[in-house]
Amino acid sequence: MSNPKLTELRTQIDELNLQILNLINKRGQLVQEVGKLKEVQGTNRFDPVRERAMLDLIQENNNGPFETSTLQHIFKEIFKANLELQHDDHRKALLV
Amino acid sequence: MSNPKLTELRTQIDELNLQILNLINKRGQLVQEVGKLKEVQGTNRFDPVRERAMLDLIQENNNGPFETSTLQHIFKEIFKANLELQHDDHRKALLV
Repeated sequence: MSNPKLTELRTQIDELNLQILNLINKRGQLVQEVGKLKEVQGTNRFDPVRERAMLDLIQENNNGPFETSTLQHIFKEIFKANLELQHDDHRKALLV
Repeated sequence: MSNPKLTELRTQIDELNLQILNLINKRGQLVQEVGKLKEVQGTNRFDPVRERAMLDLIQENNNGPFETSTLQHIFKEIFKANLELQHDDHRKALLV
């Protein structure tokens, strides 16, 4: 399918994919820093109140086309990935 | 926990969340346009070759800290959400 309009849209989607990829990784780095702070303070890495606040922020700022529930589902996957990353960091710290 | 460094990191994370939210929605709009083009051309909306190419692009451009498999999992959730959105659009078009 060599429709020029389709090719153009796909190029734009690829660019968005890379931007999203970079932001998710940047977010990962920040959450790693939060994890280190919490490690020092001895507080739990998983904070349901903070997670709820982030999901509420998604709801308040969603202009579509996606349903808020769909976006919240995607963000929960991002949060989960971050918790796993912090868990790995914690395990590595214990092994040092 | 009122650590000023933590508050600053959380503000940065909130900003990233909103940027990611907006990019996912922008991506949704572009994929809706792709869906309309495919509707006209009578081609299938789900294209496994295109999906594989996008996942490969993630792999090639991942600088961490996340594992590529983790990021690909998150992106598959985004792709799935888009397919559902296109399905809804298709259903609405049939109902007109």
